Formats: sequence, structure tokens, C-alpha cells
Amino acid sequence: MRDAFHEDLDTITDQLVEMTHLAGSAMARATTALLDADVHLAESVIAADEELDEMRENLDALSIDLLARQQPVATDLRIVVTSMRMSSDLERMGDLARHIAKVARLRYPEKAVPASLTSHILEMGQVAERIVTKAGSVIASKDTETAISLEKDDDAMDELHRQLFAALLSDRATFTAETVVDLTLLGRYYERFADHAVSVARRVVYLVTGQFAAGVELDHEEEEEASGETVLRPGAASA
Amino acid sequence: MRDAFHEDLDTITDQLVEMTHLAGSAMARATTALLDADVHLAESVIAADEELDEMRENLDALSIDLLARQQPVATDLRIVVTSMRMSSDLERMGDLARHIAKVARLRYPEKAVPASLTSHILEMGQVAERIVTKAGSVIASKDTETAISLEKDDDAMDELHRQLFAALLSDRATFTAETVVDLTLLGRYYERFADHAVSVARRVVYLVTGQFAAGVELDHEEEEEASGETVLRPGAASA
Repeated sequence: MRDAFHEDLDTITDQLVEMTHLAGSAMARATTALLDADVHLAESVIAADEELDEMRENLDALSIDLLARQQPVATDLRIVVTSMRMSSDLERMGDLARHIAKVARLRYPEKAVPASLTSHILEMGQVAERIVTKAGSVIASKDTETAISLEKDDDAMDELHRQLFAALLSDRATFTAETVVDLTLLGRYYERFADHAVSVARRVVYLVTGQFAAGVELDHEEEEEASGETVLRPGAASA
Repeated sequence: MRDAFHEDLDTITDQLVEMTHLAGSAMARATTALLDADVHLAESVIAADEELDEMRENLDALSIDLLARQQPVATDLRIVVTSMRMSSDLERMGDLARHIAKVARLRYPEKAVPASLTSHILEMGQVAERIVTKAGSVIASKDTETAISLEKDDDAMDELHRQLFAALLSDRATFTAETVVDLTLLGRYYERFADHAVSVARRVVYLVTGQFAAGVELDHEEEEEASGETVLRPGAASA
């Protein structure tokens, strides 16, 4: 039989997994709302984000209560602290899905994404869904193999982000400034969503193995892509 | 005489204040590097960010050690947990300054910011510096008056962010797609920097008073501005 402390930890784990489901669902629906210019769906994503915020608050309250009551040390203490960080990542992922839904709502009845980029954004949405689903599996199973495959999905997201910039900056592109602004922000939202999922997976791996792979950072952000550095070099526009 | 626990808390407070100094310095230098196309200064900002990352790691290690050794409860426990969140905000502010420096480096020897927007970005940089300086004061003094004035600075930042979008989308604007992408990202970096400073100040106020002002959220992000919602309405381009 599990003791009270480990039962509470199980509850925390279950809630973190549930947060990945909510974040994944929000992202899937936000992408659909964006590409279909479905304002009702967008509204529902925006409204539903509150649930994720509340889960995070409750989870943090439970964690602090657990620290106060059980006074964990060593690994147990690290698990609780890390869980609070994971809930922060997941809550932020919900925010990013909501940002995407807000772009959809803003441009309604028009579509924010031009037809030539629809399949590209759809693919970013699919990678985002896949990566958050895997993050949930990693939390539940502590499976480091899945955690590693998630890094590959993140590489795919970074590549899609690069290609999006290249498309926006192509000499043949005739996008309006409004579209360039929207797509620049959307690209960043999808990429940051994936970054936070990577952070979640890495935190789990760190708890399990006590270490990271070489060159891997805890708070993940693909810096080069963040400022578009690998794409936005002078001359890239003519690529 | 202070007991060991409160001496450790003082150390944490001092380090958080030091982190605001580093983040503020990084932001000031990043803005100068950006507006002057000073690649050496940009490089130094990018390199210096590691120091902030290390301070955050050390501070988190100290906090976890403190939790394990002193087993604080109630208010003391909340102070330690909140400190870890503040160090996370401040570390992220350093990342955002580094992102700005990377845009400067990317466009060198050109200037990323067109002459017509230089004074505008300079002002965003000045507000960012002011707000992080105030965040440091709030951490050190627990002065809720300063915390409230910091919200006003954040409103100023949001207004500057709105105006930046309006400038990018103006009918008279003749910016290249590259400039629109750069300025969209830069605007978001400055605005997020201010958001994290607001989060820091609000966390202190919450610790001191046990409550937020009505309608105030802990993890601050001015949602409307995040997706450019209040600016990017259809028709705004002709304003």
C-alpha cells in the first residue's frame, strides 16, 4: 500500500497528465478554429483556458500543502518542486493555444492564414498535438525513450518554423503586412508551445536519471529559431 | 539577531535584486546594440546571459536546500516557493534581452530598426529598464506603492506595443517583410519583458498583503496585446 505522501504524488501526476490532455485539446481546437475561421470554436478555446489556469492553481496549492505537511527531502522534495514547474509549463501551453484562438477570432470572418500556408500551419498544429501527447505519456510512464523521440518532434517544429519565415520572406511572397505580423506571432506561439512540452519531458527525465543529455538545457528554447536567426539571415529572403 | 533561516532568506532576496540589475543591464545594452547596430555589444549581451542562468540555478539550489534543511511552513514556505518563481521570471527576462541582442547581431552591419521607428523602440527600451529597476526596488523594500506604479509603466509598454503594430500596419508604411517580422518579434520581446517584471512585483505584493488587487492575475500577460488584438482589428491598418 502506498503511503499518504506517495498517494498525493500520484494525484499530482494524474493532474499533470490531465493538464497535457487539456493543453493538447486546446491546441487542436485552436488550430481548427484558425484554419476554418470558426469563431465559436475560437471562443470555446479562449473560455476553456480558465480550467487549465485553475488546475494549475489547485496543483500548486496541493504541492505547497504537501511540502508543509510531509516535509519531504532529497528526491521526494525535488519531485514536488519539479511538478510545480511542469504545471507552470502546461498552463503556459494553454495560454499559447488561447493566443492562437484569439488571432482566429480577431480576423473572423476572414481567415488569418492565407491558403498557401494552410497546410503548413496545419502541420505545425499536428506536431504540437503530437508533442504534448508524448509529454503526457512521459509524465505518466517516466519513459525516457518517449522523451527522446519528443526532442525529434521539436526539431520538426523548429524546421517548420524556419520554413514559415522563409515563406514570409520569399521574394515571390505578396502577403500583406497584417498577414506577416499574424504569421510571425502564430509561428512563435506554435514553437513556444513545443518548447514548453520539451521542458516538461526533460524535467521528467532529469528526475528519473538525475541528468540531462549533453548540451541539453532544462528550460528549453531553441534560441536560434526564437529570433529567427537561422532563417532570417540577410539573403534568406531570396532563397 | 537573525536566525539561520532568515539569513538564508536575506541571501535569496539579495540575489533576486542582483538578478534584476543584470536583467536591466542586459536590456539597456541590448537596446543600444539594436539601435546602433553594435555587434560587439550584442555579443556581450548574448554571452552575459549565462551569468543570469547560473544565478537562477544557484538560487534554486539554495531554495531547495533551504526547504530540505529548515522545513519551513506557512508564510516562510510560501516565501521560498515564490522566490523560485521570481528567479524564473528574471531568468526569462534575461533571455528576452538576449533575443533582442540576437536580432541586432543578425542584421549587422544593417540596423534592424528603420529610422522612423528608432525613437519608438528606444522608448520601449527605457520603459523596460524602468520597470525592471522598480521590480528590484519592490523585492528589496516590499514597497507596495512602487509595485502599483510599476503597473502604470506596464500600461505604457502596452500602449507603445499597440502603437508599434499600428505603425507596421499603416497604409503609408513601406517596410519590407523582413522589417515587419523583426519588429513584430522585437515588440513581443519588450512587452513580455515588462510582463515578467509585473509578475515579479505582483508576487511580492501577494506575499506582503496576501492578496491581489481586483482583476489582477499572478502570471501577468496583457492578453489583448499578446495577439495584438486591440490594434490589429480589421481596418486598423488604415488608421
